[in-house]
Amino acid sequence: MSKNEALPITVLAEKFASLPGIGRKSAKRIAYYILSLDEESVKDFADAIVSAKRDVHKCKICCNFTENEICDICNDESRDKSTICVVESSADISAIEKTGDYNGVYHVLHGLISPMDGITPEMIEIKPLLSRIQNGGIHEVIMATNPTVEGDATAMYIASLLKSFGVKVTRLAFGLPVGGNLEYADEVTLNAALENRNDM
Amino acid sequence: MSKNEALPITVLAEKFASLPGIGRKSAKRIAYYILSLDEESVKDFADAIVSAKRDVHKCKICCNFTENEICDICNDESRDKSTICVVESSADISAIEKTGDYNGVYHVLHGLISPMDGITPEMIEIKPLLSRIQNGGIHEVIMATNPTVEGDATAMYIASLLKSFGVKVTRLAFGLPVGGNLEYADEVTLNAALENRNDM
Repeated sequence: MSKNEALPITVLAEKFASLPGIGRKSAKRIAYYILSLDEESVKDFADAIVSAKRDVHKCKICCNFTENEICDICNDESRDKSTICVVESSADISAIEKTGDYNGVYHVLHGLISPMDGITPEMIEIKPLLSRIQNGGIHEVIMATNPTVEGDATAMYIASLLKSFGVKVTRLAFGLPVGGNLEYADEVTLNAALENRNDM
Repeated sequence: MSKNEALPITVLAEKFASLPGIGRKSAKRIAYYILSLDEESVKDFADAIVSAKRDVHKCKICCNFTENEICDICNDESRDKSTICVVESSADISAIEKTGDYNGVYHVLHGLISPMDGITPEMIEIKPLLSRIQNGGIHEVIMATNPTVEGDATAMYIASLLKSFGVKVTRLAFGLPVGGNLEYADEVTLNAALENRNDM
């Protein structure tokens, strides 16, 4: 970067630019913003980063991020433990919980199978999911990975493994987004919406 | 935020959401990304933040951010010390340096006068600028604050102070952006472009 810039600023901006969704210009703006904060706020910021990584780990049951051994959802007696919703990341759980419609439990894969990026099935949390099924008591597994090539492939792969256990495996419905405009829908989504059409 | 989320994740996401240009959704995505990094990268990230704040301070002459007592630009013997370009922040220096056309020195205000936000002239680095002028040898001061209400007001305020020293004070030209489209220019810019029109 520019020679007129203090090195720690360049280093900091590069760190921020490595985060998802932050470009070089935003990263530099953030670096300068950090310098404008008082010393204590800066320390707080750095501490939040370190302590999140230190205190948060995967739930022993569902691999969701948690501060405890078992996450709040797995610990909740009111949740239906016989239904498992399989998601790519802990962030997806927040999205589904917001609907308020789902009362089962989750399983977080922490990634998707992607041979292009060198991510094999062994590198994501499929094994603990199989153990849960083997322990019995599971009636349905909902594959809620993203509707992408990797999401679909991962869902298919896991579904094929689970079928041998005689568990019902379902996939989230694809179709038009509610409130969306038919005119602006892409062809693949529109095709899915047609194929999955329901009786009225 | 959602009760199903580990507290350190919520805290971290809120820290990122407090940065300029990062919304709540991006902040959460970044927080989860941080958790996916290995321990060492996370420590490096936190260290970069703390050390930038610790090692970088204001240049004794121009208030630009630097690791040294005097910044590289003020230290550069080839620069014309009789011309000072006044900017809002150190980031603006990078932008002007990129043009490669300016060979004077700078003065960083670290803010703009903004009564609405409670920022008075005493809260930005106007005093060190006046001292530089008082020490003599300055022929021209270029006001390069942003063309906003605050930027204009600050430029006007400083210009009125400097006039008593008999220094030439200029302001960056406003007009159509080069390569821009007249059709898409806002009225104020177009008006400025008309008023500042040049002979051909």
